[in-house]
Amino acid sequence: FVPSSSIRAPTHLSERINNKIDLESPKVATMETLPAGGKKVYCRCWKSATFPLCNGAHVKHNEEVGDNVGPLIVSVEK
Amino acid sequence: FVPSSSIRAPTHLSERINNKIDLESPKVATMETLPAGGKKVYCRCWKSATFPLCNGAHVKHNEEVGDNVGPLIVSVEK
Repeated sequence: FVPSSSIRAPTHLSERINNKIDLESPKVATMETLPAGGKKVYCRCWKSATFPLCNGAHVKHNEEVGDNVGPLIVSVEK
Repeated sequence: FVPSSSIRAPTHLSERINNKIDLESPKVATMETLPAGGKKVYCRCWKSATFPLCNGAHVKHNEEVGDNVGPLIVSVEK
């Protein structure tokens, strides 16, 4: 039996991946166009200050919560 | 005062973004090369069965936890 008044944060809040980027948007999809020979590093941790691009914020996130997320590096043939 | 024995899941577990992809890897970074004129839709919710590509799994995730994550669509100029 779990006492209803037990001190327990609403877990669904902590299971959100995005707590920072365009929170008023119903879905944050990003469209990018790269030129031939282009290369970009994209964020997949939703913590980057330069979202949609990676700024290394995943390192701190991974350390804090024991996660292993990392960026997507897209290169384009010349 | 929060009773130490209060029934409370270890929150850091629920704050992981990735609970599924290459869990033994210290950091899941992905390198992709696209041809001129190419286009791919990449997963950013870490729930896709076709990771690193998106398979729409973010829809179910967003509904379940009230999140708003979506994919990254990368197109390359011809």
